[in-house]
Amino acid sequence: MDIVKELEERFHRDIPLTWHMGLSVETYDEQGLTLRAPLDKNINHKQTAFGGSLNCLVTLAGWGMVYILLKEMEIDAHIIIQESKISYLKPVTDDFQAICPKPDDAMLQKFQKMLQKKGLGRIPLHCVIYEEETLAVEFRGSYVASVIP
Amino acid sequence: MDIVKELEERFHRDIPLTWHMGLSVETYDEQGLTLRAPLDKNINHKQTAFGGSLNCLVTLAGWGMVYILLKEMEIDAHIIIQESKISYLKPVTDDFQAICPKPDDAMLQKFQKMLQKKGLGRIPLHCVIYEEETLAVEFRGSYVASVIP
Repeated sequence: MDIVKELEERFHRDIPLTWHMGLSVETYDEQGLTLRAPLDKNINHKQTAFGGSLNCLVTLAGWGMVYILLKEMEIDAHIIIQESKISYLKPVTDDFQAICPKPDDAMLQKFQKMLQKKGLGRIPLHCVIYEEETLAVEFRGSYVASVIP
Repeated sequence: MDIVKELEERFHRDIPLTWHMGLSVETYDEQGLTLRAPLDKNINHKQTAFGGSLNCLVTLAGWGMVYILLKEMEIDAHIIIQESKISYLKPVTDDFQAICPKPDDAMLQKFQKMLQKKGLGRIPLHCVIYEEETLAVEFRGSYVASVIP
């Protein structure tokens, strides 16, 4: 099974709320990981996307990125989000995508070294949601992976 | 209808995801506003509460507090969340409550003055989730209300 399908099934199975959000995992490539959700299942009173749903999608884009990185490193680890900061810059008025760009090589190497040396690695990730061409949501999350002995 | 019931109905009607989360509005008094959600509808792969759900509940506790404050001030305004920061300090292993304490009088007066003078007010709120006696989630959100002419 490819990683996109695997991750989507994992989200739906392990976090029932992602199914109610209509979350799908769209693509993963050298550019990063993209998740998607429909507006109708995540709507608020102003007919725009609910802030909580926007935050869920970027939080999971970051989580999914760490999940895939660990797979690529062949490291079995638990992943948690430690803290995050989000700015809601513009209302989102249509189905939306959360994009988590792949961290650069220096960051990846640092993360991998921490995991190998200490069994614990921390990685900061930056995720975004665009409304057409404009940045609508900016998110910075800090994730921690702990190696399963 | 009392404000607790009104707010709960509003959440369920306007934001369908809150219904899937099993969100309820528990109490509002001089101490603050308390929302609640069951673990089972907000569970993750580790049998603890999904970070996205925790963030939804504190975000809405803050939103609900602004909603009630505006009612008390008899001001009709739109409310949005502008930005927030959240720390996940401890896993949440049971049904959980998000508490938004009522801002102090100085803050309330400043908020009301901004709304009356400029038709726009910003208010920072601090919300928390406890796991038994220990702080599990700490959240700071900045909300903006714009008066409906």
